[in-house]
Amino acid sequence: MKRNSLLLLFLLFISISLSAIYAQYNEVNLMPVPSKLTAGEGKFRVKSNFAMSVKGDCPDRLYSYASRILHRLSGRTGLFFPQDYVTNKSNSDTVSFYIYCDQKANVKLGEDESYSLNITPDRVELRAKNDLGIMRGLETFNQLLSSDEDGYYMPVVKIEDSPRFAWRGIMMDVSRHFMPVDVIKRNLDLMASVKFNVFHWHLSDDQGMRVETKSLPKLNELSSDGMYYTQDQIKDVIKYAQDRGIRVIPEFDIPGHSTSWLTAYPELASLPGPFTIERNWGVFDPTFNPTIEATYEFFDKFFKEISSLFPDEYMHIGGDENSGKQWNSNPQIQAYMKEHNIPNNHTLQSVFTRRIQKILAKYGKIMIGWDEIQHPELPKDIVIQSWRGEKGLAEAAKNGFHVILSNGYYVDLIQPAEFHYLNDPIGPNSKLSDEERKFVLGGEATMWAELVTPENVDSRLWPRTAVIAERLWSPVTVRDVDDMYRRMDRVSFYLEDAGSTHRRNQETMLRRLTNDNDISALKNFVDVIEPVKLYSRHNQGVKYTSYSPYTRVVDAAVPDVKTARDFRKLVDKYLSKKDEISYNEIKTWLTLWKSNHQELLKTIKLSPVLKEIESLSEDLSLMSEGGLQALEMIHSQKKADKSWLDKQTQLIEKAKQPRGQTEIMVTSAIEKLVKSIPGA
Amino acid sequence: MKRNSLLLLFLLFISISLSAIYAQYNEVNLMPVPSKLTAGEGKFRVKSNFAMSVKGDCPDRLYSYASRILHRLSGRTGLFFPQDYVTNKSNSDTVSFYIYCDQKANVKLGEDESYSLNITPDRVELRAKNDLGIMRGLETFNQLLSSDEDGYYMPVVKIEDSPRFAWRGIMMDVSRHFMPVDVIKRNLDLMASVKFNVFHWHLSDDQGMRVETKSLPKLNELSSDGMYYTQDQIKDVIKYAQDRGIRVIPEFDIPGHSTSWLTAYPELASLPGPFTIERNWGVFDPTFNPTIEATYEFFDKFFKEISSLFPDEYMHIGGDENSGKQWNSNPQIQAYMKEHNIPNNHTLQSVFTRRIQKILAKYGKIMIGWDEIQHPELPKDIVIQSWRGEKGLAEAAKNGFHVILSNGYYVDLIQPAEFHYLNDPIGPNSKLSDEERKFVLGGEATMWAELVTPENVDSRLWPRTAVIAERLWSPVTVRDVDDMYRRMDRVSFYLEDAGSTHRRNQETMLRRLTNDNDISALKNFVDVIEPVKLYSRHNQGVKYTSYSPYTRVVDAAVPDVKTARDFRKLVDKYLSKKDEISYNEIKTWLTLWKSNHQELLKTIKLSPVLKEIESLSEDLSLMSEGGLQALEMIHSQKKADKSWLDKQTQLIEKAKQPRGQTEIMVTSAIEKLVKSIPGA
Repeated sequence: MKRNSLLLLFLLFISISLSAIYAQYNEVNLMPVPSKLTAGEGKFRVKSNFAMSVKGDCPDRLYSYASRILHRLSGRTGLFFPQDYVTNKSNSDTVSFYIYCDQKANVKLGEDESYSLNITPDRVELRAKNDLGIMRGLETFNQLLSSDEDGYYMPVVKIEDSPRFAWRGIMMDVSRHFMPVDVIKRNLDLMASVKFNVFHWHLSDDQGMRVETKSLPKLNELSSDGMYYTQDQIKDVIKYAQDRGIRVIPEFDIPGHSTSWLTAYPELASLPGPFTIERNWGVFDPTFNPTIEATYEFFDKFFKEISSLFPDEYMHIGGDENSGKQWNSNPQIQAYMKEHNIPNNHTLQSVFTRRIQKILAKYGKIMIGWDEIQHPELPKDIVIQSWRGEKGLAEAAKNGFHVILSNGYYVDLIQPAEFHYLNDPIGPNSKLSDEERKFVLGGEATMWAELVTPENVDSRLWPRTAVIAERLWSPVTVRDVDDMYRRMDRVSFYLEDAGSTHRRNQETMLRRLTNDNDISALKNFVDVIEPVKLYSRHNQGVKYTSYSPYTRVVDAAVPDVKTARDFRKLVDKYLSKKDEISYNEIKTWLTLWKSNHQELLKTIKLSPVLKEIESLSEDLSLMSEGGLQALEMIHSQKKADKSWLDKQTQLIEKAKQPRGQTEIMVTSAIEKLVKSIPGA
Repeated sequence: MKRNSLLLLFLLFISISLSAIYAQYNEVNLMPVPSKLTAGEGKFRVKSNFAMSVKGDCPDRLYSYASRILHRLSGRTGLFFPQDYVTNKSNSDTVSFYIYCDQKANVKLGEDESYSLNITPDRVELRAKNDLGIMRGLETFNQLLSSDEDGYYMPVVKIEDSPRFAWRGIMMDVSRHFMPVDVIKRNLDLMASVKFNVFHWHLSDDQGMRVETKSLPKLNELSSDGMYYTQDQIKDVIKYAQDRGIRVIPEFDIPGHSTSWLTAYPELASLPGPFTIERNWGVFDPTFNPTIEATYEFFDKFFKEISSLFPDEYMHIGGDENSGKQWNSNPQIQAYMKEHNIPNNHTLQSVFTRRIQKILAKYGKIMIGWDEIQHPELPKDIVIQSWRGEKGLAEAAKNGFHVILSNGYYVDLIQPAEFHYLNDPIGPNSKLSDEERKFVLGGEATMWAELVTPENVDSRLWPRTAVIAERLWSPVTVRDVDDMYRRMDRVSFYLEDAGSTHRRNQETMLRRLTNDNDISALKNFVDVIEPVKLYSRHNQGVKYTSYSPYTRVVDAAVPDVKTARDFRKLVDKYLSKKDEISYNEIKTWLTLWKSNHQELLKTIKLSPVLKEIESLSEDLSLMSEGGLQALEMIHSQKKADKSWLDKQTQLIEKAKQPRGQTEIMVTSAIEKLVKSIPGA
């Protein structure tokens, strides 16, 4: 294609300013939303002659990335492309997707990730300074796949894109429940799908230390129940991540959260052992002794070996939730504090942190840690990961420390996507000064693993965490919650295609729960319930440990469940518009839920594990029956009598009580219906 | 429990002879069926105080195995057991499952796998000579889990069990489509679930050589597209297999099927290169040159390194389907044959095979190969894997070679389970002499990988291959097909619980195929179709390669599809009994299929990849409509007129034509209905 015809095409584009991007979302289901998008007329048809070519000095990993995109495109369309792999020899007349990449990126903090993607009816051009940008652009391209009756296509569009924050991560806890390599690799693919660029690997905690350490073999023998990554596996994961433009930052959580380590090395604890690997959840007392040299000799040995294993310049040392109880109870430590004028445990921990920081520096690493490590005497290049709130973030930035936000991104707490989405490291109302803002590098979602296993961890991460990816990538002005949910539901499909098990494993779990009987009644029920939020699952009379079953209804239930979310929106719409379509839809749903209990009862009889949700299912049925009556009263403008209203209020209050650590998510909507009856 | 009360309990058992075992199957859904089963009265209740204990000198791997069974039991019942892991310290008053194991087994051919399992209402005892027998017994125990309204239980039963054949394997081809480590590990779990004990790893073929070879790095660079197992991964897989009592036998298919090797070492080929890794399916000509010493130097180096990597005493060298064309075309080879009085290519290959066998022997390995390697001059300890038919097996046994059967066990060919089930290495009508029978070691299912990917390989293997496990484990008299299918459908659930993706990934594939729209109409359709059988998928106008999409309807469709199988049985029952229940069930199904096409059409409009099955879906609809009319005529004893019959016959003939390489599996049943109309 010649330059002037390209120019002509360019003129056809309708330029759209950022504030008007929303109008385009209905056509382009991108998540994250790109920083600049210009929609054009027409469609780029993906046909069976589709082929890709890469020009420029690009690394092997980019050819592999492009080949994966090629194969996913073939897989989604069922088209038999002529090209086997994208290689540096791929260049023929049939090529319709041209990639221009100048150089190999370093997968490190601050590397350029920008790209431009130009889709015309005849060809696609993707340009970036380096292969990292190309990777991001390839996912954008792949997300754009659409179809109509004539076949598959990408909408004509011109995108200029770059991230808002340089640090966009997910932390996965593999200590409380071990996650095998395939779970990690799968999630790296999913992270790349939505442009995350940091995999923060929480590798040690009270419940297990998960890295092979050749210089300290007792750790492998005694600190992990045999569940740890070999160094070869770690190298393999790091390469896998880098091939997807993702940094890997290991975390070794010290001096607290260290029962597993101290099981192997009790002589380094602040009180005498022996210790055993922790099976329970909570904050525990075993803590390294910061007042003996043996501790630092140990960590010198440890970080010497580990530093060469992980190439990223950052190393996370945790530092959170040290209870201090062991320190208080040890006379030797108390004497040491007195002798060295250490006024309190926080200062004592900072002594430890500074020593560890020096060890890290010796091995070429920059320290990162949770809020608690902040101390004025630490060098300014360290990074604070803020988990305790906005205040911690602001404080770190004010003190001139780099900081990333995790408060508000705890996806294990089953909060709605909306909550995480509107949680911004530098929100529209942020009070940070321009100078302070420079210290805010980005954020990280955290997937703590008390209540998840390899079977359901994806369902806690995806699709919700994709909205955090968007928060950290897209412009601050992109904050429309309805549109976010619409695109999140679509990206859920994209993530499943990329390998996520968040949907397929739910069906497996429901079959197990029904003893392989018909799952439909249980599915209807699970589609309107969610696990209880925050930490309340631990306060429902069930004591969870590392070996508890995570296979019950609560574990199959998912956060932000779509049916309930849609129903709540539907009721709001009906109550404001009183339209017939919404009326009928509400009626259909309530009728289903009303009758579902009788069906579910049959299944419960065949599967004792379901007994715990029997009364909740019954409450849903009774409440739905009331909801139907309320709907009719609203529809016909009839009044309800008081005794009926009292009964409904009672039913609704009862239905609000969690059972099986789950709660019904349509209660508030049904309550709205009841309260909207004339005279209610 | 004292001895005399145990005796009393024992007297309660109703002893059942082998021929009467069938009556018990309705209660115990075991696959494979144990060699001796005595059912008793009562139930062993699995409650939240359940605990296990191991006595005797047992290896760590058995504690891990027992712990996995404990956790699966907890997962399936949702019960919170007090025990975290089964260890050598697990021994308390609450224990109700006692394991007695005398010694650690060698995971090698011929090792004792027998066990006895005694379930009484109060306790369970599992005894075996070694931990291999205990592993087999643990799976039997776990398969026995049942439930009633009072909770979970195992039926009271006494089992004495041992395998019929010592060699019970699955071959997985990882060359034509690479299968990552997690796919292999998952399938090792599934194999253990049904007592397979050999994993035959087909590691090389024209399309890729999948093992890291440190002494021959060019193989890694040029023969695998970067998709190979590192030696650490291989060691990890072997340990994983041994921990489950499974031997790992690697296959390196030579001298043919070797394009990938010769891509790296063209100088060893029988004609000049260059060669490139094969992307197509079929039998190809590139073959090692058996007349040059460089070939044997190469293999000496290769097998020296590889032999120490794989601990099993057997090493598979393939040897099949050497086209001989390169040998015929090479004057040097022809001259060599003349000079050495080698009359034909078969003899030339045997020259090669004998040289390779000597190399293997030097490194402590016994050779195994496909039928073609048979030659009188080979030592008698080698094993022939018979893929070409009963004759090959008999011939090997007559010649005094050990032999395993694979003919009839090609699960990639999408044949019904029944076919594989009744295929017996030494069937009831076997003509082998008692002496010859001693040479028959067992059999292996083969999973060739032209048409499968990691996404759907489980669905080609499971649950069907479980019936081959039963064939090779259970007594020859266990041959009831109906009962086999009943138990296969149940073991499908057991396998999913053990990690199989054969069901969950179908749903993922259907969502992809519908572009994430409602999958129910497509599911209804897919539930009555199957991929075309044997090799005919290659003769339907679609040329498949290694990079084709394996994501279309045919890839989501499964062998031996249950709905169609049940429907065919239902029609047979109705035609013989004319009962009202069957009549109504048939009507329900035909009505569903009749109307399904209109629903599916809506989905097809949203997803172009479905277009290829549109007319097949329409045929199902039309044929079902005719089936409904036929049913009514039979029911009311009405006659059909000739023009109607002609039209139905036409419809049925048309419906028999495959589309999208799939075929409708209820056609024969509907045809039976039409032909059963009075006067038809």
